[in-house]
Amino acid sequence: MKELTLTKTLTAAGCNAQMELPLQNLVRDIIDAATAHANHLGIGYDRLMTDGNAWVLSRLAIEMTRYPRVGEEYALTTWIEDFNRHFSARNFEITGAGGKVIGFARSIWIAINIASRRPADLASIADLADSVSLRSCPIEPQGKLRFGGDEDSCTPYTVAVSDIDSNRHLTTARYVELAANCVGLDMYDRRFPARFEIAFTKECRYGDTLQVCSRMNDGCVLDVAIKGADSTDSCLCRIRFDERT
Amino acid sequence: MKELTLTKTLTAAGCNAQMELPLQNLVRDIIDAATAHANHLGIGYDRLMTDGNAWVLSRLAIEMTRYPRVGEEYALTTWIEDFNRHFSARNFEITGAGGKVIGFARSIWIAINIASRRPADLASIADLADSVSLRSCPIEPQGKLRFGGDEDSCTPYTVAVSDIDSNRHLTTARYVELAANCVGLDMYDRRFPARFEIAFTKECRYGDTLQVCSRMNDGCVLDVAIKGADSTDSCLCRIRFDERT
Repeated sequence: MKELTLTKTLTAAGCNAQMELPLQNLVRDIIDAATAHANHLGIGYDRLMTDGNAWVLSRLAIEMTRYPRVGEEYALTTWIEDFNRHFSARNFEITGAGGKVIGFARSIWIAINIASRRPADLASIADLADSVSLRSCPIEPQGKLRFGGDEDSCTPYTVAVSDIDSNRHLTTARYVELAANCVGLDMYDRRFPARFEIAFTKECRYGDTLQVCSRMNDGCVLDVAIKGADSTDSCLCRIRFDERT
Repeated sequence: MKELTLTKTLTAAGCNAQMELPLQNLVRDIIDAATAHANHLGIGYDRLMTDGNAWVLSRLAIEMTRYPRVGEEYALTTWIEDFNRHFSARNFEITGAGGKVIGFARSIWIAINIASRRPADLASIADLADSVSLRSCPIEPQGKLRFGGDEDSCTPYTVAVSDIDSNRHLTTARYVELAANCVGLDMYDRRFPARFEIAFTKECRYGDTLQVCSRMNDGCVLDVAIKGADSTDSCLCRIRFDERT
């Protein structure tokens, strides 16, 4: 199956102040769709773990023309664009009510060895050549994220129990929340995150005290650097906020 | 339909460090099941809003013998135990793989007028007498939560964008996280939240600085008081941690 579609309905408890799907929950849905498709192709968590390996999300770029609204049925379709024995490039199309396309995403996943934290070699797993889809993903690949100059402000954050995932690292969704929270609620009332990019470099653990540093460029492009306990970058994000129409 | 069942599968991205459903996500599922059933009975958000009213969760008690595990299909069945024109008492049964019962929950919902924030009178909505189910819920009703003596510690928390729900208040799931984070990851490795109770008294808003105050009793019963911007209690929680077997 070259494509997998995950269909969801946005519940009242799942929406944000603007009564839309929050960015961090879209990211969680994207990871769920990726996981389900990898399982289906026989390259999921269980298969990789038999060799002591796991997929780690390295980079993600999302572009949305709007977000799903409360009560709306939406769907994520995912497919593999490219792969080799170390990584896979997986894309997504997001549709809203009536199947109308409302966004796309591109992601890069790296296979690592759990024990050594070094890149894994997936040469032994099933050949994926038949699984590549030629479906197009009409958004820009992610560029190299660079923090544009000095940060405007840094806020400390200590990693809590509810932030920890099954690998005992800070969850991806929480990274996205920490970045999204660098601007106020009034920004989200006026604008929405039209393009979001994130690149991970180093994992954070329970109890680490991070620095969440941000800088707003041109009033609508937010750069965020989340620095780990040793002050090196753990992840870099960029969010472009477009005006609501 | 006197009962509604919501079936889910715990994904890798949805589980915690113990590879189980986190308490806050169980609470979100409970709210989703309640919302879906209320909509089905014609007493949901849309119907209440035509009179300017809304349901507000007032109290919740949960008892679990264990939590759903990664990859496990679990289900929540909800029914109304009691109601009058001001409130409804709604219960839940939680089952895991093979339909085995793993927990129950009791909740109290109050209808309020959105503009006045005062109790609403639901006399005009559909008669619910036919909707009451006699199914039993074999857990203790929630007692009056009292904070047992002086708190051990208080930590400030400022309400962020990602904490805000569609009513522009702190989300229920985030209250649960703030309480659950008062103990360390090692506690969750040794024990699990076997009984959880929460009672809400006052809403918190974006930007409020709260105090999260906690006290551990007998090494396994955690009391938490979350105090709002004016230092009065916004909610009280109690979590009893049982040993894992």
